[in-house]
Amino acid sequence: MQRSSFGESRCSVAQTLDILGDSWTPLVLRDVALGISRFDAIQRNLGLSRKVLAQRLLALVDHQVVMRTAYQQAPVRYDYRLTDKGKDLALVLLAMQQFADKWVFGVDNAPVVWQHLTCGERSNPAFVCDKCGEPIGPDDVLPAPGPGFDGSQNPELTALLVG
Amino acid sequence: MQRSSFGESRCSVAQTLDILGDSWTPLVLRDVALGISRFDAIQRNLGLSRKVLAQRLLALVDHQVVMRTAYQQAPVRYDYRLTDKGKDLALVLLAMQQFADKWVFGVDNAPVVWQHLTCGERSNPAFVCDKCGEPIGPDDVLPAPGPGFDGSQNPELTALLVG
Repeated sequence: MQRSSFGESRCSVAQTLDILGDSWTPLVLRDVALGISRFDAIQRNLGLSRKVLAQRLLALVDHQVVMRTAYQQAPVRYDYRLTDKGKDLALVLLAMQQFADKWVFGVDNAPVVWQHLTCGERSNPAFVCDKCGEPIGPDDVLPAPGPGFDGSQNPELTALLVG
Repeated sequence: MQRSSFGESRCSVAQTLDILGDSWTPLVLRDVALGISRFDAIQRNLGLSRKVLAQRLLALVDHQVVMRTAYQQAPVRYDYRLTDKGKDLALVLLAMQQFADKWVFGVDNAPVVWQHLTCGERSNPAFVCDKCGEPIGPDDVLPAPGPGFDGSQNPELTALLVG
């Protein structure tokens, strides 16, 4: 269950992986994102141990991805909700869902679908460019060193981007 | 380094997690997506062991996410490239990058940026609804059971979606 930590890596993929943690964490995040907000309900839904769930929720709270609010005292019990940061992280889960809906289950056999509240239609979220609004896929973009690029890490990537 | 396997789960997030594997696998996928296509170059770039890299590449090939082509015989040496399935999976990495660019490094300090070939601008990919073209965030959608929903899994999710 242990993962490498990419704490010092100046790679945004690696940093997100560190927050997503092990394999259970994204599913806990999924449940909270769907509105399953109480410890016992998440535990029943996922069928994981209380110890593992408590650890994963604590890590998500530490990362300020999930916030908890007491809904009962003596004994204290909490509701778990996504923070704004968590809502942005949930978009990674949405991308994961889009992938497996297409390539594992098939779009006509998707387990969960989304109704877009803005238009009311069943929606498949798609990536577009924020500048021109046209679709973005991996073949449509060229990587370049950003303002925070560190040439001392990842020698091959540095050669590729900086030449 | 071991992860749970969600082989039987009818959840698209879980299925994608199974393919993304352990923490190294998405970074190997990232390198291949960026065009670092040869074993030795990926190994130098990530600084992981040859054994771990070989295992991760083999798994990605098994999942038909990456394809390999011999560029040299005796000894045989391979180039690794994304398949169409892999290009769609790379969108998950793009979502991970967007998240940490914003919440870990800050958009003004992003390590890697993208030029959108269609418009030529520096682009931040954003999710929109494929029906109306308006933005999609976690607050903008309601989940519903899809055609492949299995009510026997995830009791709390079933109660939430089916009532």
